[in-house]
Amino acid sequence: MANKYLVIGGVACGPKVAARLRRLDLDAEITIIEKGEILSYGGCGMPYYISDEVHDIKELWSTPVGVPRDVHFFKNVKNIEIMDRTLAQKINRLEKKVEVVKLESGEKMEISYDKLILAVGGTPIEPSIPGKDLNNVYKLNHPYDAEAIKRAVDSGTIKNAVIVGGGLIGLEVAESLTKHGIKVTIVEMLDKVLPKMFDIEMASLLMEDMRTNGVDVLVKNKVLSFEGDDQGNLKAVITEQGTIEAELALISVGVKPNSKLALEAGLEITENGAIKVNNYLQTTDPDIYAGGDCIDNYHLLFRKRVYTPLGDLANIHGRIIANNIAGIKEEFPGILGTTICKVFNFNAGSIGLTEDKARELNYDVVTVIAPGPDKAHFYPTAKTIFIKLVGNKKDGKILGAQIVGPGDVAKRLNMLSLGLYYGITAKEMAKMDLAYAPPFAPAMDNLITAANIMQNKIDGLAKSISMLDVREKLKNKEDFVLLDVRSPKEIEEISLPYKNVVYIPLGMLRQKYKELPRDKEIIIFCKISLRGYEAQRILEEKGFTNVKFMDGGIVSWLFERNIKK
Amino acid sequence: MANKYLVIGGVACGPKVAARLRRLDLDAEITIIEKGEILSYGGCGMPYYISDEVHDIKELWSTPVGVPRDVHFFKNVKNIEIMDRTLAQKINRLEKKVEVVKLESGEKMEISYDKLILAVGGTPIEPSIPGKDLNNVYKLNHPYDAEAIKRAVDSGTIKNAVIVGGGLIGLEVAESLTKHGIKVTIVEMLDKVLPKMFDIEMASLLMEDMRTNGVDVLVKNKVLSFEGDDQGNLKAVITEQGTIEAELALISVGVKPNSKLALEAGLEITENGAIKVNNYLQTTDPDIYAGGDCIDNYHLLFRKRVYTPLGDLANIHGRIIANNIAGIKEEFPGILGTTICKVFNFNAGSIGLTEDKARELNYDVVTVIAPGPDKAHFYPTAKTIFIKLVGNKKDGKILGAQIVGPGDVAKRLNMLSLGLYYGITAKEMAKMDLAYAPPFAPAMDNLITAANIMQNKIDGLAKSISMLDVREKLKNKEDFVLLDVRSPKEIEEISLPYKNVVYIPLGMLRQKYKELPRDKEIIIFCKISLRGYEAQRILEEKGFTNVKFMDGGIVSWLFERNIKK
Repeated sequence: MANKYLVIGGVACGPKVAARLRRLDLDAEITIIEKGEILSYGGCGMPYYISDEVHDIKELWSTPVGVPRDVHFFKNVKNIEIMDRTLAQKINRLEKKVEVVKLESGEKMEISYDKLILAVGGTPIEPSIPGKDLNNVYKLNHPYDAEAIKRAVDSGTIKNAVIVGGGLIGLEVAESLTKHGIKVTIVEMLDKVLPKMFDIEMASLLMEDMRTNGVDVLVKNKVLSFEGDDQGNLKAVITEQGTIEAELALISVGVKPNSKLALEAGLEITENGAIKVNNYLQTTDPDIYAGGDCIDNYHLLFRKRVYTPLGDLANIHGRIIANNIAGIKEEFPGILGTTICKVFNFNAGSIGLTEDKARELNYDVVTVIAPGPDKAHFYPTAKTIFIKLVGNKKDGKILGAQIVGPGDVAKRLNMLSLGLYYGITAKEMAKMDLAYAPPFAPAMDNLITAANIMQNKIDGLAKSISMLDVREKLKNKEDFVLLDVRSPKEIEEISLPYKNVVYIPLGMLRQKYKELPRDKEIIIFCKISLRGYEAQRILEEKGFTNVKFMDGGIVSWLFERNIKK
Repeated sequence: MANKYLVIGGVACGPKVAARLRRLDLDAEITIIEKGEILSYGGCGMPYYISDEVHDIKELWSTPVGVPRDVHFFKNVKNIEIMDRTLAQKINRLEKKVEVVKLESGEKMEISYDKLILAVGGTPIEPSIPGKDLNNVYKLNHPYDAEAIKRAVDSGTIKNAVIVGGGLIGLEVAESLTKHGIKVTIVEMLDKVLPKMFDIEMASLLMEDMRTNGVDVLVKNKVLSFEGDDQGNLKAVITEQGTIEAELALISVGVKPNSKLALEAGLEITENGAIKVNNYLQTTDPDIYAGGDCIDNYHLLFRKRVYTPLGDLANIHGRIIANNIAGIKEEFPGILGTTICKVFNFNAGSIGLTEDKARELNYDVVTVIAPGPDKAHFYPTAKTIFIKLVGNKKDGKILGAQIVGPGDVAKRLNMLSLGLYYGITAKEMAKMDLAYAPPFAPAMDNLITAANIMQNKIDGLAKSISMLDVREKLKNKEDFVLLDVRSPKEIEEISLPYKNVVYIPLGMLRQKYKELPRDKEIIIFCKISLRGYEAQRILEEKGFTNVKFMDGGIVSWLFERNIKK
């Protein structure tokens, strides 16, 4: 008799399970229950529909050759039955049946299964802010939301928008709305956007770029209420830091796993509120599997489960679930927290542990900030990226990285994804045989340079201080020398306005080092920090003992600066 | 007493050794001997100077902040002595001295060393073709060559050019010259360009694109002689296949290691003609190290040494040599043959074993050709890449990959670089936690899809045939069905003009499969091959037993086609 596979959820993981199962088990009866009517859509594409980069929202649920993945597609191509506009209400595990209700007719029925797959996704967290039901206060969880936001934008009545929450979706939509000439303000409770991805100095680089692009980024701020006009349309957002006029708001403060159905069926739920699965993505009922945004994932570096609702993971889950059901035993190894987004001309990505997280986990942390061109510096399309590496001093292993800038971030993150999976050390990374030609990378890839600096720090050759610590010293009016070793031309463009600053270009340092005091701490900086390191070694050669360079150089310095207009 | 380090060669590896040694050994005396007068230049950038993308050739030897790395730079910044225009003539290993001659004055002198570093590079192979000394017959090995070619181009007298050799430099310069409106013909002896990097079908995709961009690519052809006018200027290139009018020619048939100096000093030379080094990059004399283009490298997959003169490896060598000299023991692990180039709007890269090479090494080979968009297909800047994976059926390990197309090739190559280093299998690759957002990748990265197809083939689920084999069957007028499962709209755009072709769109196959003969071999194709695989499984479900799909789909088919104008 044919196997009966029942999938609840028709967006990402569910259709992947069904499609793979079809190819593995040619005779099976496969059914997907979906409460909505749009199937298999790329939710991550919604900000690009709002921005008009994707012109037809149907592209989000069409195949690359333009065939919509609708009920007919699944029937004709995949021989998969879709019950859309159908809500799963209860799982009867004893009888292996699911009670469903057809949302249009109210008709109830029971569907039996041999194996059940829960791919029920997540739901946006809705903070209980007064006024959140006003017109033009949105969430962005479904193509209908995207269409509603787009209609509001196209109506021409939106001049100002507030985005509640500085997460991935919030930042992407900030760009989408700005492209329509709307003034956007982001209100974030914590001290930075993308707080799980970035330490403060890296988030600051991104926030600075967003501000340059016209977005107001308000941190350590909280929305208190939404205020409407007499037609019930949003007109202002009241925050702790003041009132912001706005005709549109997006609430985007995170997602939580949909685990109610599983919980009511007696399946175990994790401390993240997700459906508990083992490495085979099997729930505590061996005939029920779960994947996608309703489960959490084992983080290989956090060494615990975290909730990371991401479309690419949902696809990987789907295939693994189908394999296990069809008898190809396969484990999901876990994740590294790889995350990326594009915000205006900045790419911003993160993997593994941030410095904050690594310290919280009691690692003996070493960090590097390495800015540089992403291609041979003479190649015309070279653009800057800032890499922050977080490493373990004890064994030289790379624990995480944060990369931001207009240059190619995704390439370096993906290398690190494989590297971190295999426990790569800085020394190993520095010797990788990478693809080099001037249009693609510097002769020494940014990641190789960063790894070399990390190893130099571990070996005690390179001695650095973070810009935050330098800033602190300046605030406290400590007596030290801030040695700028850049060229006069560079200094004319941008310089630091502190009385501690002394100028000696690197090329003159071997002649002029005697002008520096031997009894004071000397902190050197240049544009990015490579000359700073060089200068540190020169001064040590000359017998100076209290010398460091400032990580990241002046390009990473976001405090007081003199900039030539 | 201070250590005396003597480096011969001032281009890539040499200066890297010297600079790193300076930072490791603050008191050392470090000298570089260089026969030319330009130091530390990025030779790989020369094609972009010829094309006018790099406007000032000095950029190739300047730091990212524009400081030329000349004798003064090395003296003032690095405290490294440069003896330029100085030729090393003999190594006296017993006395640890090198005999040099100042090229301008003819003055001879001896320089002693504690450690000697040979970074003497490679020399272009000069085939003995009659007429190769005519005016405007060039090689491209030094910035002076690039300047000479550029001057010829700028003179406006060059209408046609011939490039002898379809290697990396030849292809890059073909683009550079075409950008100036020059008609370029490449003459390659073998059956394809970049023969070490690509199997024939992948090289063909690249050659097709080059032809579209106006370059004549002649393969299996040989230059017999260069013919000049009465002023000694090139006017034609005589080849086995005929005469090509040309006012400029570039001979670019490869590079050989400069090992004469080492050989004469009694150092061992490898079968590649390179200076023999151990894993610490030490020659057979423990006080002499060698790196860069004068040595060969251990290829981790070939399991033997190969000659791979590349700028990025020279830099890695340099650092390792300095570390070992300074007492930080460090091995060079070997290479994977990672190579990439940009040719017009195609990026073309390769790593590990080609199919041809893997078969030569007696692997039980499985291959995949996976074309697809490099970003979410709905994202406006998505561009196609074609991935060919070569794998080992026995253990599922990926042995190599070739990637070409206008999309992002470097990212996938670099992932594979780490993957191949660690012996990754297709199954592992398919579960990597990569950086996904629509502007960067499809939800399932192209490499994940390719890895999944590879595993499906190993598991016997996916059954394919190469386009070359299909072509052979057609030539032999074999009786089989070539089933096109694309949509009518796609077929209108491009189709295959053979009587074997039968059209049934994938969505109709479950209804119309009875129209297909059960007694004939059925070979299915679609645009890229994913629907072909789907169709294979459908027909198997319906009881067909002799069904395959064609790898790479119609987008990879470069033979007879009907294309809508």
